[in-house]
Amino acid sequence: MMEYKSKLLNNAVQQMATLPGIGQKTALRLVLYLLNQSSDDVSRFSDAFKLLKENIDFCSSCYNITDSTICQICSNIKRNKEIICVVQDIRDVMAIESTGQYFGLYHVLGGIISPMDGIGPEDLRIKELIERVKTENIKELIFGLSATMEGDTTNFYIYRKLQDQDIKLSLISRGIGVGNQLEYIDELTLGSSIVNRADYEINFS
Amino acid sequence: MMEYKSKLLNNAVQQMATLPGIGQKTALRLVLYLLNQSSDDVSRFSDAFKLLKENIDFCSSCYNITDSTICQICSNIKRNKEIICVVQDIRDVMAIESTGQYFGLYHVLGGIISPMDGIGPEDLRIKELIERVKTENIKELIFGLSATMEGDTTNFYIYRKLQDQDIKLSLISRGIGVGNQLEYIDELTLGSSIVNRADYEINFS
Repeated sequence: MMEYKSKLLNNAVQQMATLPGIGQKTALRLVLYLLNQSSDDVSRFSDAFKLLKENIDFCSSCYNITDSTICQICSNIKRNKEIICVVQDIRDVMAIESTGQYFGLYHVLGGIISPMDGIGPEDLRIKELIERVKTENIKELIFGLSATMEGDTTNFYIYRKLQDQDIKLSLISRGIGVGNQLEYIDELTLGSSIVNRADYEINFS
Repeated sequence: MMEYKSKLLNNAVQQMATLPGIGQKTALRLVLYLLNQSSDDVSRFSDAFKLLKENIDFCSSCYNITDSTICQICSNIKRNKEIICVVQDIRDVMAIESTGQYFGLYHVLGGIISPMDGIGPEDLRIKELIERVKTENIKELIFGLSATMEGDTTNFYIYRKLQDQDIKLSLISRGIGVGNQLEYIDELTLGSSIVNRADYEINFS
């Protein structure tokens, strides 16, 4: 960790470097860039994140972000309330929404099961998902997680919890490359993988 | 430009994307990362940049950053006040300081002459440098700019302005690869290039 003569600079660089993927050298470059902007610009920059954190909430039903209690997707009467697409995080909701191909609801897990990172089922909103399936009139659950081992593990865990429920389980079609992360898929591929979703089948081969 | 349902999110992402090298997708990833941190963490993050901008100043002599009027280098009685190393920006001061090989003063130009970017001599602190050389007891000026065409142009411009002055002009030794930017040079190379600095010679070959 590089130390700068100025405590204020030091503090700003360390804070910038808390962001994922931003190292010390990049952090310094970004902070010096900010320092060259007007006071108003720096205020606008700083306030944006505080304002967001203080005022944004998570939908009490699907855990998408929202400015009120229920998000705009859950409260939209035009959406099909009998289908839930299970996704890892908010970016996936945005990615699927931008395809314009899906009209059901979502459930944002807040991550996927990953023992390597110490993330177990209890750290995710799986209990809340099971509760939704049992109490709401859900006919189909689409697994919209990334095509990785962790995504598959999470799908399987949820499948086991819902085995006794009368519900169709499907998987967004794996036209997307195995091992790819959902957020980097182009809209066309992602749209067609939702339309052509396959039945969820457990294959112990 | 992607638009998000939440105005607050939209604003935060746009602000993050004002940083150089941060695109829309990365900005969203960073903002969602912040959103997952505690309110205290987000406050600390946000406040760091405002605090820096509001309280930091530039040294009235060398234009290095400082918490007071004169920077810690200029006010250090152990530094050799007869040598000035001319650098492009504050990062270069830090880079040279971290070699522990230089004990003179600095002069931060705030950029280099670059007609392509619309940066002329009047946009830099060259007038202030000439003034320092004429009024202070400066024996040697070390050109510590990047070994690029813009760096060479700036050296030459300053050389012309100081031609009639009784002052030694030198150049940090070009052991550093031609075309390399100063800030990415390792400390050993940079240190030795300062120690082994050569006389500044104009060569119209």
